Amino acid sequence: MREVAIIGVGMTKFGELWNKSLRDLFVEAALVAVDDAAIDINEIDSMYVGSMSSGLFTDQEHIGPLLADNLGIVPAPATRVESACGSGGIAFRQGFIEVASGFSDIVLVGGVEKMTDVSGKEATYALATATDQEYESYHGLTFPALNAMLARRHMHQYGTTREQLAQVAVKNHKNGTENPFAQLRFEITIEQVMNSIMIADPLRLLDCSPLSDGAAVAILCPVKMAREFNNKPIKIIGSGQATDTMALHNRKDITILRATVEAGKRAYEMAGIGPEDIDVSEVHDSFTILETCIIEDLGFVEKGEGGKATEEGRTAIGGDIPVNTSGGLKAKGHPVGATGISQIAEIVKQLKGQAGQRQIVGAKVGLTHNMGGLGGSAVVHILEAI
Amino acid sequence: MREVAIIGVGMTKFGELWNKSLRDLFVEAALVAVDDAAIDINEIDSMYVGSMSSGLFTDQEHIGPLLADNLGIVPAPATRVESACGSGGIAFRQGFIEVASGFSDIVLVGGVEKMTDVSGKEATYALATATDQEYESYHGLTFPALNAMLARRHMHQYGTTREQLAQVAVKNHKNGTENPFAQLRFEITIEQVMNSIMIADPLRLLDCSPLSDGAAVAILCPVKMAREFNNKPIKIIGSGQATDTMALHNRKDITILRATVEAGKRAYEMAGIGPEDIDVSEVHDSFTILETCIIEDLGFVEKGEGGKATEEGRTAIGGDIPVNTSGGLKAKGHPVGATGISQIAEIVKQLKGQAGQRQIVGAKVGLTHNMGGLGGSAVVHILEAI
Repeated sequence: MREVAIIGVGMTKFGELWNKSLRDLFVEAALVAVDDAAIDINEIDSMYVGSMSSGLFTDQEHIGPLLADNLGIVPAPATRVESACGSGGIAFRQGFIEVASGFSDIVLVGGVEKMTDVSGKEATYALATATDQEYESYHGLTFPALNAMLARRHMHQYGTTREQLAQVAVKNHKNGTENPFAQLRFEITIEQVMNSIMIADPLRLLDCSPLSDGAAVAILCPVKMAREFNNKPIKIIGSGQATDTMALHNRKDITILRATVEAGKRAYEMAGIGPEDIDVSEVHDSFTILETCIIEDLGFVEKGEGGKATEEGRTAIGGDIPVNTSGGLKAKGHPVGATGISQIAEIVKQLKGQAGQRQIVGAKVGLTHNMGGLGGSAVVHILEAI
Repeated sequence: MREVAIIGVGMTKFGELWNKSLRDLFVEAALVAVDDAAIDINEIDSMYVGSMSSGLFTDQEHIGPLLADNLGIVPAPATRVESACGSGGIAFRQGFIEVASGFSDIVLVGGVEKMTDVSGKEATYALATATDQEYESYHGLTFPALNAMLARRHMHQYGTTREQLAQVAVKNHKNGTENPFAQLRFEITIEQVMNSIMIADPLRLLDCSPLSDGAAVAILCPVKMAREFNNKPIKIIGSGQATDTMALHNRKDITILRATVEAGKRAYEMAGIGPEDIDVSEVHDSFTILETCIIEDLGFVEKGEGGKATEEGRTAIGGDIPVNTSGGLKAKGHPVGATGISQIAEIVKQLKGQAGQRQIVGAKVGLTHNMGGLGGSAVVHILEAI
């Protein structure tokens, strides 16, 4: 297998982007990434795009060739991959495998979702297709409801408090104010979270990531070739992907996200390092309870200590395990298919020292964690400045 | 890159399978393939599944982990890929790349579609999401309509006759009578095709493949390992994937399926052979005009000669370029995501001499051609008995 590097990243602003279509968003992010990589667009051998439900959100499947066409790279192969909210991270992994294998040299990997062309109700319905349809969504379970069950159990089992969950949102909103691509660029207080409207007890509006439009793209090539293009390529040193049962009722302990544990293990093993070696990470905080669980399941803190670590400021910029410097899904926004690649974009910026006011000084190794559904799938990547 | 072999295949019967769900179909096909490969299911390192629109057909996205879960292989990575009706072929290619790269040893690749849980109107709508939504489907263009335009132009440009198109259906129905997995196991005559109800002039009902439920699965591993498992592994010697413009109006000559031409070229080049070396092939005959074009665009006959070659019986079993011995999409059925893998299953059977009454005697090299939309994407594989 060949070593693989990221030589360019790009993304759109995330938000309710009424005047941009699915294809507009993707092309905009792709052109920024191509520019960042300083390649000619005709050098792209192949592309992958992650999108959760372009069918239900925009009446459009078959978006691989659609986007290749709009980008002007026909007849290059273009493949869409889908793993619900983890689609972007999985697309990134497919590109990594394709370059590592030798099938292609320069591969564009992106993610996109256009979620605001449908009503909030229709969007909630579309998102619920990431659960087990026969055993969960058909009976009325939505994502907030599933996360609420997870939160209740975590609070019961480990003494995690409502305030500790709120602190995840407060921290990520603070980080988001420094990110020009973020959707919700304002600070919030614990009181505001605690007093926001109830969505699914105990989770309130400000515990939830928003519905968003957006796209993000990265350009990959072999490390050897990267040095010709770019004086600061970022190397992919670990990749892990795993699954868990779709339905929550089949899990022995719902507070443990098994796919996340497994994907993390595999990525650490490939990289030959452990959680203690990670300088900065982006994790899948679509709900505040998830960041709390994930930092435990990736080994940044002991199981059950996620709430406490957040309360103590350890996951803030300046803490010993900074998490979601971009603002995370909570404040940056969560156009589901794009999220995984936007995490890559943030870590690349951190490792290149280009993260401005949210820079983690001296960051050398970063991690991304992207998840589908309530952890039915998870994918972890570890990147290193070389 | 490592050499890769197919060590097992399996499929469900195709048809209107009211009593089987999406997950039932996939698991049924997967267990047959696992059995055929004579492996333990726990040896599977990773899986891919092709499905066009599980969201619009069955309210279920995120089917990678769903199917891994139902198959009992959690926490193995499971990735869904989508390229409209070409989803199965693309899933196969992803599995091929993953094994060739060394990331995984044993990879299960499958395709599935459950199309009959919605009405015919809803299914037509879902299938139209494979066209360019903004320029085609939004304005009322359906797949039969697009294919009708292609047929008209082919007839105008090359003198292809209505009867020659009908002959594609007659041949494939005849082949299908010998395939126990086929949906439409009855012979038809040219007169029946010509008198069937008009769908989109000049295409009639019997020019079109049916709506179907079904699944197909193949098991891949390195050739070296295959010899331990199996005394007749089938080697993948060529793989090519390409795109074309999504909208028909952007093509210089709509009778040329550029993605098919390019994917074919790439597959032949990897295999180091040409169209004259192919003993048997399965191509994407969702409409009779498509088989006519595709056998030209893959180089089996000169451009414009597809109709004549069919009329002369060259593509029949016993002809010099046998095409769609399985009955093709036309008679075997077309559960869109499953089609690409079912083509692989047919060629594997042909190369192992297990195709019964439809066996091409002495077949050593076979080709599969799977396509998305009206050729916005195409993927070609070449297999060899070793």
